[in-house]
Amino acid sequence: MAAGCVHLSGSLCSQFLASVDALLFDCDGVLWKGESAIPGAVQLINRLQERGKRVFFLTNNSTKSRQMYGEKLRGLGFQAGPEQVFGTAPCAALYLRHESELRGSVYLIGGAALRGELQAQGIACSGSGPGPELTPGPGPTQVWAAEPLDPAVGAVLVGFDEHFTYLKLCRAARYLRNPACIFLATNTDTLLPLEGGGIPGTGCLVKAVEAAANRTAHVIGKPSVYMFECLVKEHSIDPSRTVMVGDRLDTDILMGSNCGLRTILTLTGVSSLEEAKAHQESDSSDRHKLVPSYYVDSVADLLPTLD
Amino acid sequence: MAAGCVHLSGSLCSQFLASVDALLFDCDGVLWKGESAIPGAVQLINRLQERGKRVFFLTNNSTKSRQMYGEKLRGLGFQAGPEQVFGTAPCAALYLRHESELRGSVYLIGGAALRGELQAQGIACSGSGPGPELTPGPGPTQVWAAEPLDPAVGAVLVGFDEHFTYLKLCRAARYLRNPACIFLATNTDTLLPLEGGGIPGTGCLVKAVEAAANRTAHVIGKPSVYMFECLVKEHSIDPSRTVMVGDRLDTDILMGSNCGLRTILTLTGVSSLEEAKAHQESDSSDRHKLVPSYYVDSVADLLPTLD
Repeated sequence: MAAGCVHLSGSLCSQFLASVDALLFDCDGVLWKGESAIPGAVQLINRLQERGKRVFFLTNNSTKSRQMYGEKLRGLGFQAGPEQVFGTAPCAALYLRHESELRGSVYLIGGAALRGELQAQGIACSGSGPGPELTPGPGPTQVWAAEPLDPAVGAVLVGFDEHFTYLKLCRAARYLRNPACIFLATNTDTLLPLEGGGIPGTGCLVKAVEAAANRTAHVIGKPSVYMFECLVKEHSIDPSRTVMVGDRLDTDILMGSNCGLRTILTLTGVSSLEEAKAHQESDSSDRHKLVPSYYVDSVADLLPTLD
Repeated sequence: MAAGCVHLSGSLCSQFLASVDALLFDCDGVLWKGESAIPGAVQLINRLQERGKRVFFLTNNSTKSRQMYGEKLRGLGFQAGPEQVFGTAPCAALYLRHESELRGSVYLIGGAALRGELQAQGIACSGSGPGPELTPGPGPTQVWAAEPLDPAVGAVLVGFDEHFTYLKLCRAARYLRNPACIFLATNTDTLLPLEGGGIPGTGCLVKAVEAAANRTAHVIGKPSVYMFECLVKEHSIDPSRTVMVGDRLDTDILMGSNCGLRTILTLTGVSSLEEAKAHQESDSSDRHKLVPSYYVDSVADLLPTLD
């Protein structure tokens, strides 16, 4: 049985907060669901900063640019700016600009935020937004198999796309038949938690493209350590005095483990305490990486200690 | 090393054909690609029947009804009728009618042929065809998460759908949150071979829905034995004197193994001889089921023996 998964409350909570300088928060399912803040989350984030803690936001959600996240945070009452936000949209663009050997443009399955972040890094892209109408008449599939591809495309990037269609899947797969074409995904979350139970996440689209291309995407989002590396490059933080707070074991908690951070699971989102305990009781060292150091019912549970 | 994977030619081919009464053919990549017959395939099918062999067509492709397959076969010059065709569209409808405990209607990701075969079995369905327009304005995702669902829906069926969209994925996943909702897929092929290299198959859409629903679909098509069972119910054939001919190891050849049939891999479609040899040389008994008894470069290689 692995260590960890301790309920964080009372005096333990005070001791713990004294031992951290920086707190990294996932957003969906942790600080808000859709357009509603989790009760107490706004007060917590603001109080933490008043007490001198540094707060950052690490989100796999690719539907917003840094600027848009800054606006959403302020709109909900969080005292925070875009420089505190690390999302998969800006980090995917940074990766393509600085870490990949991209020549040419990007075929994008994704929305306006991703397109904007790519353009901000000087990277041209096509594919975003509603696709063209389907070719009418019988046998359009024959046309799609032979449709001319843009020779400038050097990468396929898959993020959240509410305009995802079969035709986009078809194009992405055909670009990816060229082994030199880079294959990047913002994240692999299969659920986007919202009021009303949530909707399919980017991970579902990634699965479809991976199956069609018979290739595996390189993933920017948690549990990959890349977003944490971007954060460390911009802001000097001490990992031994940093905690990652999230609602998903397989992304937030695993990334924290991968980066050598302490972790807190909050139970307002996707993963349950039962799942965490099952990982803890397993014999697999891989599954032990999914065990949070601590858990809380909601991030609001950290508030009383700060008063 | 497993037995099998023998090149079928010359006198071996004559002996082999003398030992079979019935031949089951996959279609895409075996008899045709898109709208063009594989050279020699028409002559082979017609000659086999002239020599008293029984010929059947077992296809995972869900885009055609039995009637439409009959028309396609005749249009390309094959002397064959719809009663010889077993496709996943009619077999999925038969399964829902006779093998499942379906109450109510079907939410269908699929085309007109599937819709028609369901209706022919007296099963109502919704969802097929181009989806509704996306809700305009910001935050449509909130609307989709709370959109009213049809309480009559008792099953989700996923087949090939060129009109597949994110919104369809969202609806299917929300129906499947009810554990009593039946989850059926026509097939899991990830590539539909066509002139020009092929396009993503139904399996890519199934992967997306499975990920979104966090459930595994029950599959009608090969390698499942269900279509073979449907065939045996309508036509009495002797499995020991029957051969399955296909281009995919993981569907056609595996189904043949699962049904105790001899098998022939033809190299005009998806799988390669190298893949077959790799399965043959492995130590895994599961992988040995993917080894064909014989292989040919094309089904036309069986023709000279019949002259």
